[in-house]
Amino acid sequence: MSETGFTLDPRLQADTHPVTSLPLCEVLLMNDARFPWLILVPRRAGMAEVADLTDADQARLWQEVNRAAAGLRATAPCDKLNIGALGNIVRQLHVHVVARREGDAAWPGPVWGNGEAQPYDRDEREQLAEHLCASMAAKRAAISGT
Amino acid sequence: MSETGFTLDPRLQADTHPVTSLPLCEVLLMNDARFPWLILVPRRAGMAEVADLTDADQARLWQEVNRAAAGLRATAPCDKLNIGALGNIVRQLHVHVVARREGDAAWPGPVWGNGEAQPYDRDEREQLAEHLCASMAAKRAAISGT
Repeated sequence: MSETGFTLDPRLQADTHPVTSLPLCEVLLMNDARFPWLILVPRRAGMAEVADLTDADQARLWQEVNRAAAGLRATAPCDKLNIGALGNIVRQLHVHVVARREGDAAWPGPVWGNGEAQPYDRDEREQLAEHLCASMAAKRAAISGT
Repeated sequence: MSETGFTLDPRLQADTHPVTSLPLCEVLLMNDARFPWLILVPRRAGMAEVADLTDADQARLWQEVNRAAAGLRATAPCDKLNIGALGNIVRQLHVHVVARREGDAAWPGPVWGNGEAQPYDRDEREQLAEHLCASMAAKRAAISGT
């Protein structure tokens, strides 16, 4: 399937900072300093559920979720990863990958719908996004053996 | 990998009713009548994160999540599926598949950590589990063309 007609949902765009583009997904950093939190958005128009994707795209999505999770974990050590595809508010298909630490602002509950986001400082956000991008590139190199 | 040493976490066992066994996962019905809600537990000991599974098991897990989601949707029509792997409280790897309806008890927030579960009546729970099991079997037949 092609990327024809794909545009990022404006609410996702407003709430995040771009990290990198993987073969299928845009990877975005949620602008909430309470939780290291990535969002992966497959560049496919009109998708709402994971099952709407082709089998090949689904396989790629979960590979990219793993890669994002490994990069996130390397950058922001955590006690547990939370992975979620909800979409109750923003229907464009997107997958959350959140690094959770015991005692964080929502622990042990979910992060979604919990309190108010605390935006990063601009420098802090850009630096974190760069680290995450580099960390995900390193994970790809490690996986492909190059 | 084998099933050696796998036992279902006692909290998952206490909160759910068995629906069916798929090749990798036990499929459980959450005993909360507010939301049609399945939990898939890979029969692999000592797993906490999806990435802990082998690549083959991960692929199987997401196939079984799709199958459970299709069966759930056929039994309990919904506006949105919510898929989540959290594990902040119960660390044994498990994936939630929840059929969400606009205006349900937690809408548009997540179901996890929201209010008190409302147990099904026994008959209602057993009937629903039977329907879900049949629906998932039908989905397998449709997918394999048999």
